[in-house]
Order: sequence, then C-alpha cells, then structure tokens
Amino acid sequence: MGKLKVLFHINEPERWQRVLTNITNFINDAGQDNVDVEVVANGGAVVGYAAQDRLECGCSGKDSAVCGKPEGKLLEEMKRLAGMGISFTACRNALKMNSMDESTLPPFVTVIPAGITEITVKQGGGYAYIKP
Amino acid sequence: MGKLKVLFHINEPERWQRVLTNITNFINDAGQDNVDVEVVANGGAVVGYAAQDRLECGCSGKDSAVCGKPEGKLLEEMKRLAGMGISFTACRNALKMNSMDESTLPPFVTVIPAGITEITVKQGGGYAYIKP
Amino acid sequence: MGKLKVLFHINEPERWQRVLTNITNFINDAGQDNVDVEVVANGGAVVGYAAQDRLECGCSGKDSAVCGKPEGKLLEEMKRLAGMGISFTACRNALKMNSMDESTLPPFVTVIPAGITEITVKQGGGYAYIKP
Repeated sequence: MGKLKVLFHINEPERWQRVLTNITNFINDAGQDNVDVEVVANGGAVVGYAAQDRLECGCSGKDSAVCGKPEGKLLEEMKRLAGMGISFTACRNALKMNSMDESTLPPFVTVIPAGITEITVKQGGGYAYIKP
Repeated sequence: MGKLKVLFHINEPERWQRVLTNITNFINDAGQDNVDVEVVANGGAVVGYAAQDRLECGCSGKDSAVCGKPEGKLLEEMKRLAGMGISFTACRNALKMNSMDESTLPPFVTVIPAGITEITVKQGGGYAYIKP
Repeated sequence: MGKLKVLFHINEPERWQRVLTNITNFINDAGQDNVDVEVVANGGAVVGYAAQDRLECGCSGKDSAVCGKPEGKLLEEMKRLAGMGISFTACRNALKMNSMDESTLPPFVTVIPAGITEITVKQGGGYAYIKP
C-alpha cells in the first residue's frame, strides 16, 4: 500500500496548534514512514511562520492557540515536524497581503505562487483534504 | 448508481447543530437509501457526545448551536440519525484530551484510533469531505 | 490537460471576502481559461446574496469581511467573477431558513435543491473541495 497522502489547509492563525496536534497524532497512529503530509497556509495563517511577536491575535478563550503559547513554541513544533518530513508551504499572495518578506521565513517553509492552485492540484493527485 | 458517500468532519462543539441539519437535509434530498454518511468528530467536538451539562461553551450569538439547545436535544437528534444508518465516530486522542471516558459514550458512537487517519482513508475510498 | 476544477464551500457570511479573494488569486495564477469554479453557499452564507443591508453580522475585528465593506461591494465582486464564468449557487434549504425569496436573488445565482448533495456529486466528478 502506498503512503497516506494528506493536505492540511489553514487560513487562520489561531488554528495552528490544532493543525500541528492533528499531524502529530496522525504520525503516531499511521507511522512516520507511511504518511506524506503537506501543510498549505494562506490568508492570515501565514503570520504563523513569522516571529511570534508579529502575530496579531484576535482570538480568545479556548481558541487562543496562538496567543497562549510561549514565544516561538509553534515554530519549534513546525521545525520538529519538518524534520520528520512534513512539508510546510506559504501562499505568496497571502505573504504580500500580510506584508511579510519571503527572505525572513524559516528555512523549512516553501513559498508557493497560489495556495488555491496548490490545494487543487494536490487533491487531483490523490491527497486527502483536511481543514482543521 | 452507487450510494452518495459523504464524510462530515467536525472539530468544534458549537458546529454540531449545523452538521446534524446538513445531514437531515441531505437525507431528505437524496433519500435515506441512497446515502452513506459518516461523521468524524475530533478536537473539542467530541464533547458533543457527552451529557449536555459537560459542554463548556464559548460560543455566543448566532453560533451558539450547542448552548441554545435544551439539554440532551443534540444527542437525541444524533440518536435518531444513527437509527437511520448514519455513522458517528469519535477520535480516541480527542477523547483523552477532553478527559472523556469511552465507556460513558452513547452506544451509537464508535471510537476510532485517530480522526485524521480515518478521514484520509475514507477520502481515498471515495467519500466526499465536508466541513460544516 | 483539463481545467482545474474547484468547488468552494461557504456556510458563514463573514467569509465571503475570503472566498472571493481566493477565487481572484486563483484565476490570476492559473488563468481564467484553465479553471472551472463553483461556489456552493449554504447555511447563513446565503445572506451574502441579499442586499447588504440585510446582512446581520456577528463578526468583529479582523474577520469582519462583510461588515467592513461598503454596501453592495461584495455583490459587485461576485457579479464580476460570474461574468468571468464562475458559478454561484445557493442551497434552497438555506434560503428558506433565512426567509429569503428566490425571486429576489441576483440573476447570476443558481438555486440548488440541497448544498450537501451538490458538494458530494461535484467531488465525485473530480472537483477539489476548498473551505475558505
């Protein structure tokens, strides 16, 4: 059997913790060697790739996944998962809309021209779509 | 023509009413015998399977689907739909994170090891993915 | 290569701006002649097809995509995209739940019997699913 191919779509910064927890649980269940995971971040979610102090967080209460974290904690989790083969991408349009300079992104992030095109092509290639 | 296969993904408790309304409308439109529906609940959504007084609801206004319901009303709707063949599942990781004992779940709920794996496998098997 | 087929699902009115921006960016990236896009609006999102003053908006801060717009601006963007071949649909059940008269909808909106059926059938026909 081939690998389980999954694309996670995130467009809101406060949902990063959920995405990362989902991926971690998925790897623990299916096995690192059996999964092929790509994260596509567009919209406001791309700010999750920036230094934590750049995050403008409108979330509150239970959903404050971003705000509640110590600085840099989410990026650390991303880096750990990237080291396990998880692919992290950022939509160029979203980076522009959020005034983010591509050169400042962590080295594990790949910039893609358009998030929607990427999601569409990947689903056509057999990736399951999940929106945490 | 085969049945219309659909997987509903829910990870927020305040979205249960929408999910159940979507399923009811779908059955009314396509016909009970022509649909194959599975609900995968992970994240905070699993608390919807618990007694209503366990629900900690941070929702407000229009989205207070859970809070606005009389106690047990959502569970009654789930039970009715389960009786029509709709499958309800709960992610084991999510149950643990919400300190829920599997033995206390309603009998119509099936516990699955990991919600993301389930969603991925089902999409690979031809289920449409819908996130209400 | 065939066209890139995408179905956008929207069920919350405050997400219209995101959907329309996503579609615009997608067309700019992939080319108008290479995309086949359908928007399925159900739930509260159908009010986005009504005059702006009918919108009851519970959104705030960054997510106030609807509220922050001058009256009629979103409908203008929809009309422009419809002119480029983008298909806009509204779930009949959702129109009823929101007390909306089908005869008052903009001419570019197609009413469908049930949003979930539409989404399921389209995914079965090779459309990628995206929930902005």
